[in-house]
Amino acid sequence: METFADGVLAIAATLLILSVDSQVSSGTTRLGHDLLRIWPSYAAYAVSFVTIGVIWVNHHTIMNQVRLVDRAFLLQNIVFLLCVAFIPFPTRLLAEHIRTTGATTAAVTYGVTLTVTAVMFNVIWLYALGGGGRLLRTDRDEAAVRGITRSYRPGPFMYLAATLVALASATAAGVLYLMITVFYVVESSVFGRTRTPS
Amino acid sequence: METFADGVLAIAATLLILSVDSQVSSGTTRLGHDLLRIWPSYAAYAVSFVTIGVIWVNHHTIMNQVRLVDRAFLLQNIVFLLCVAFIPFPTRLLAEHIRTTGATTAAVTYGVTLTVTAVMFNVIWLYALGGGGRLLRTDRDEAAVRGITRSYRPGPFMYLAATLVALASATAAGVLYLMITVFYVVESSVFGRTRTPS
Amino acid sequence: METFADGVLAIAATLLILSVDSQVSSGTTRLGHDLLRIWPSYAAYAVSFVTIGVIWVNHHTIMNQVRLVDRAFLLQNIVFLLCVAFIPFPTRLLAEHIRTTGATTAAVTYGVTLTVTAVMFNVIWLYALGGGGRLLRTDRDEAAVRGITRSYRPGPFMYLAATLVALASATAAGVLYLMITVFYVVESSVFGRTRTPS
Amino acid sequence: METFADGVLAIAATLLILSVDSQVSSGTTRLGHDLLRIWPSYAAYAVSFVTIGVIWVNHHTIMNQVRLVDRAFLLQNIVFLLCVAFIPFPTRLLAEHIRTTGATTAAVTYGVTLTVTAVMFNVIWLYALGGGGRLLRTDRDEAAVRGITRSYRPGPFMYLAATLVALASATAAGVLYLMITVFYVVESSVFGRTRTPS
Repeated sequence: METFADGVLAIAATLLILSVDSQVSSGTTRLGHDLLRIWPSYAAYAVSFVTIGVIWVNHHTIMNQVRLVDRAFLLQNIVFLLCVAFIPFPTRLLAEHIRTTGATTAAVTYGVTLTVTAVMFNVIWLYALGGGGRLLRTDRDEAAVRGITRSYRPGPFMYLAATLVALASATAAGVLYLMITVFYVVESSVFGRTRTPS
Repeated sequence: METFADGVLAIAATLLILSVDSQVSSGTTRLGHDLLRIWPSYAAYAVSFVTIGVIWVNHHTIMNQVRLVDRAFLLQNIVFLLCVAFIPFPTRLLAEHIRTTGATTAAVTYGVTLTVTAVMFNVIWLYALGGGGRLLRTDRDEAAVRGITRSYRPGPFMYLAATLVALASATAAGVLYLMITVFYVVESSVFGRTRTPS
Repeated sequence: METFADGVLAIAATLLILSVDSQVSSGTTRLGHDLLRIWPSYAAYAVSFVTIGVIWVNHHTIMNQVRLVDRAFLLQNIVFLLCVAFIPFPTRLLAEHIRTTGATTAAVTYGVTLTVTAVMFNVIWLYALGGGGRLLRTDRDEAAVRGITRSYRPGPFMYLAATLVALASATAAGVLYLMITVFYVVESSVFGRTRTPS
Repeated sequence: METFADGVLAIAATLLILSVDSQVSSGTTRLGHDLLRIWPSYAAYAVSFVTIGVIWVNHHTIMNQVRLVDRAFLLQNIVFLLCVAFIPFPTRLLAEHIRTTGATTAAVTYGVTLTVTAVMFNVIWLYALGGGGRLLRTDRDEAAVRGITRSYRPGPFMYLAATLVALASATAAGVLYLMITVFYVVESSVFGRTRTPS
């Protein structure tokens, strides 16, 4: 499971640079100007890269509690990875269009993608938890299990709220997407103090 | 074996987003319109991503029963992965041309690729089975082995039939490709209930 | 070692499809014609994919005999992977230019790349062998070790010869590149009968 | 940890070839001339590939001494990988613009990226070392630990110095970037003689 999932997550994160790269054409005679002009691409690259990185950390947190995988669990994971691998596309749209008339459309597309991804993350976890935790390890850490549930549940709601804000202001939504990522980074570092063997 | 195979499968799946991405040009002034117009790209992305995901699950199902690998088995796997890594190309063609005069050509190209991939999958499995199951584990699960054979055998025929339908109607073929994927997802979830250690 | 090497090999192989993909422009109105016209791209894709696949099998054959890695060995491997990751570029050139005035240049570029790659492969192996096999396992299979030496030594000479032929005829060189790949596939399957745990 | 990190490093290294590839347009009628003209792209490809390769070797050297990972360590690693995955972009800029008026801008962009990457590398290591080496193995090799500290500390300063040189001469900075890579290759091979199980 984890080789394929880690592969998709690593590739999706690394492909993000292609969208930054395509913003500066080969024959430009104003390189410095171009590099400054595309600052939203750097911001979008950083936010999406860290978001996928946090997804990777959290996915491992789940897998550490999982003992068995059945076909339905694998297939839910495939749909989840399908969502994550989609992220580079709305990331480019948001970076390119945040200052055009397409800003709202781009921000909504980004938000919908992240909302669906967050929903799928909860689906996976709730499935693993369901039926009395049939897929979980018998020696699971109940505090960690409750921590995961508490940590992941707000994700879809936060992204949905930011997506609704995008209808009014794409820039405000962009700031919210950044803040949700910062929230998960801080939440992970402050509350998720558990240390695991490397 | 599995690191390389998982790598190729993960990359082939993740590269699919590039074909969606290239459908929306940087300078578009009608982003919303463009995002709706390219809906076949989303459908093709989803179908091919899930197809590759199911191939990954099934490839692991095979490898779980395999004890030894010889060179011929490795080389057959390379040809198999060559087919899977080809999938992003006909996926883009089908998405782009389903509404043009090239629809039949694109749908046939997609179908031929998937048919050959399904044939190669059966070749790998029959080779592992051959000679009294020389490459299989001695403690193999005979029910699982029969299940794999029964599950994979119809693949080439289903894709070949859909490819023939493409000669008459590309749209009908596209629906069939989707249905074959759904069939394998359902077949996996309903019949392949075996749980394996994560 | 192997995760990084397998990753580079898997990505280099999978990226080959991008060169095929770029040969068919989005707006083409003659899709069938285009798909037939680019047949050299399919041939180049297949030859390079299988070549990288055989490199992967052979790299594992080496690593199976290696017990220790030192820094020099790692760095030689990095240079070797640098060569392999370069292969998609001359592959595209050869496919695109085999029927233009650039055919000789493209065929020589492909040949030089593969020659240098084959030289680096031998460098890695001879370094592992050197000093009385200091990096090899103490329980190494001496027959396998001799088999690897015998199998890899002709590689640089075959590719160099084909590169020289390219100066006279790019098409003949292309056929030779294909035949070298077939040689290694057959050589692997017929002589490399060793079975290893999966 | 290592699957994801190895994946990002392998992909970032392998994607470098796309920047070389894009320098030669499909329809060129002067292939030989073009292939000679883009020599800075080969140099940039080689320098960045080996740089990422050395980063990979050094990252494993760190991870070999690490016993536990906590969330803050993982998140620092994500930011570190974000920097490494960014490298293909300034690599292309430097190769394309070293002979244009954008040379200084490109060389500074490359230098800043590598400086920040080197800083992040030290941040990760100092965090692992901090608090009495709380994340390190209890049976750690103290000589190796001191060797890592001594080896990584000059990195940010060397890249910062080369970046400052870039303000005066992009070409001189380019040579310095090459020399820093050579320094780390030599330093690794000469001083880092430790052999580890493959």
